[in-house]
Amino acid sequence: MLDKMLANVREAAPLVHCITNYVTVNDVANILLAAGGAPIMADEPDDAVDITSICGGLDINIGTLNARTIPSMFACGARARELGHPVLLDPVGAGASKLRTDTANRLVDELDLSCIRGNSSEIKAIALGSTTTKGVEADIADVVTDSNLQATVAFAEEFADRVGSVVAITGAIDVIADGSHAFAIRNGHPVMSKITGSGCMLSALVTAFLVANPDDLLMATVAAVAAEGVCGEKAAVKMVETGVGNSTYRDYLIDNVYLLTPDELERDARVEEF
Amino acid sequence: MLDKMLANVREAAPLVHCITNYVTVNDVANILLAAGGAPIMADEPDDAVDITSICGGLDINIGTLNARTIPSMFACGARARELGHPVLLDPVGAGASKLRTDTANRLVDELDLSCIRGNSSEIKAIALGSTTTKGVEADIADVVTDSNLQATVAFAEEFADRVGSVVAITGAIDVIADGSHAFAIRNGHPVMSKITGSGCMLSALVTAFLVANPDDLLMATVAAVAAEGVCGEKAAVKMVETGVGNSTYRDYLIDNVYLLTPDELERDARVEEF
Amino acid sequence: MLDKMLANVREAAPLVHCITNYVTVNDVANILLAAGGAPIMADEPDDAVDITSICGGLDINIGTLNARTIPSMFACGARARELGHPVLLDPVGAGASKLRTDTANRLVDELDLSCIRGNSSEIKAIALGSTTTKGVEADIADVVTDSNLQATVAFAEEFADRVGSVVAITGAIDVIADGSHAFAIRNGHPVMSKITGSGCMLSALVTAFLVANPDDLLMATVAAVAAEGVCGEKAAVKMVETGVGNSTYRDYLIDNVYLLTPDELERDARVEEF
Repeated sequence: MLDKMLANVREAAPLVHCITNYVTVNDVANILLAAGGAPIMADEPDDAVDITSICGGLDINIGTLNARTIPSMFACGARARELGHPVLLDPVGAGASKLRTDTANRLVDELDLSCIRGNSSEIKAIALGSTTTKGVEADIADVVTDSNLQATVAFAEEFADRVGSVVAITGAIDVIADGSHAFAIRNGHPVMSKITGSGCMLSALVTAFLVANPDDLLMATVAAVAAEGVCGEKAAVKMVETGVGNSTYRDYLIDNVYLLTPDELERDARVEEF
Repeated sequence: MLDKMLANVREAAPLVHCITNYVTVNDVANILLAAGGAPIMADEPDDAVDITSICGGLDINIGTLNARTIPSMFACGARARELGHPVLLDPVGAGASKLRTDTANRLVDELDLSCIRGNSSEIKAIALGSTTTKGVEADIADVVTDSNLQATVAFAEEFADRVGSVVAITGAIDVIADGSHAFAIRNGHPVMSKITGSGCMLSALVTAFLVANPDDLLMATVAAVAAEGVCGEKAAVKMVETGVGNSTYRDYLIDNVYLLTPDELERDARVEEF
Repeated sequence: MLDKMLANVREAAPLVHCITNYVTVNDVANILLAAGGAPIMADEPDDAVDITSICGGLDINIGTLNARTIPSMFACGARARELGHPVLLDPVGAGASKLRTDTANRLVDELDLSCIRGNSSEIKAIALGSTTTKGVEADIADVVTDSNLQATVAFAEEFADRVGSVVAITGAIDVIADGSHAFAIRNGHPVMSKITGSGCMLSALVTAFLVANPDDLLMATVAAVAAEGVCGEKAAVKMVETGVGNSTYRDYLIDNVYLLTPDELERDARVEEF
């Protein structure tokens, strides 16, 4: 059914409002276009609520949050839910600063989120209230491995149930859960952590899948995460073949999303249900 | 004469002050460098007027406008005109939010603009005061086709005459007009709409051409629009040949501006006068 | 010893806090990852000091400075030095506006900087209090050549001694000095000035080398400047071989940093001691 979910994105061409950081915003826009969606970025309170209203979904990424943009996150999140649009939170750097941790927690508390996607340390920072975060990369101690996979699944399910949202903990192994089901995904490649924006792009991609697949937010998230992982693998093969480095790899990753067919996604996704 | 206009850009190396959105700003800077110009970005009121003063022209793009940057647009627009520099407005998303529509309209009213460049729905939002805008892409109903080309030309000429500026409505067919002449350009490729920033890059490119060709702003605009279109076509050929996607296409587009010769522009431009 | 300094970056994986402009921020992040480090961007006063505290070094780039971010530069600069972290200043556009010149001068006066890296006109704008600056590119009159190299070295040494910081004046010939030693580097390629961000990327790269080589800040700076120059040369060879333009060149430059080995750096660096 992952193939159908990608086909739905191509068909629906979802317009996604992104309140996102200025570091990776260009890649975020291009991966949405690659997937068949379209981006609009707006973060000024007087502008952003109007933009939310004409879009199909909202991606809130706190990567370079500031006093001007934080109120937009809350106002747009509320407006999107009034309209029945999915809202995703990417708590970039939660645990790394008080402002990020507090803002992420308030967004979780005050908005009716459809999905929360982050690395393990970020999700823990919200769920548990404290963690060690090495910037925006998952701390080594927080990496999901086979030995802690069951515990991570249980943690994700409990947190998802508590907040009433899909939870996606992404890394070497991705864990996606809502309150009743959980999946692990074993796609992707280590070099994805050698470019900036793998996570930010994924959050936007998930949002597009949520918009286009409103009846099954859990599987829509699984499909988007698997899609980026599959494309990351293809890009890594091409990276080795062509002898390039991380900057061209970034282009290959987005290119592969552009080129990805539903059949390829269905065939190459490695998804395990718990 | 298009060849001469590109040669003039290469010769003059115009320095363009861009008050532009943070989504596509890197591509905007690189396309200016590719064309033979140079960019400076500055959007803080205390900084931006000084920067305008040392540049040759000003590109105002309202893509991620905010309360801090809007006053810079007005102050720099006024300063640039005092100095006799061309000022271009790219009304990104006009029609999509009240703030964008109102700001674009105020900029048109209060500044002495040299050129207004946008897609059909954006230009209509300013000219007619209302429209439907699907984000930053031209609405299907607003696409310029052979069947509505004459009407679009008449609309562009009337609007250009009214505001005293060159008007460039760009899309599958581009329509460029001032109060007395109009041109259609049939260069470009559909994949240009599958990357973010085709329009933003074009606005910066037009500004560079205006600076380098001050005696014929209409043909300077035509030359710049044709140049990006020709490069978009070349990039599309290479995209197919090399089997890449939209992210690498973006590089190919800018690369082709870097590589474009005046002779190629003259030969490959498809310009029709009305 | 340059080889060892790159090896140390790969080993230490320094986390660099960047308060940097939104034009080139994505490339800055990717070149840090390419070198073996990692970036965090944060510029909001309430957020940035916490981020500085978990990083190993701070890169302050005033490229799109504004009233909100300037206080973050001072607060983070002070916090970083409390923690013994290196702090680098990239005075982008100093001399081009009063705000940039004044802010750069205040940062030099009030912070205990480890390194100041800019082009010749920017460094002169700080050191001499006035200059002509053509945007962010070195003015022709300010280019370091063989005929003014000795004078530039003397100037750099004097300024470095006065401010107690490493000073890196980069361009066709790079001059790096502290109060007692000076080096010239003859790596790099003219096409590096045809992309945006060569300088911004270099500042971030230098910061990563400073973090990983705290016992010899002068040679760490030399190693980073030589590394980007060597990679710029390799990228230029590939640019010609593959017939691309400046946008793909940008990818090649970062790719080559990703691929650069310590042995290659040691072999290809052209460093002259004064």
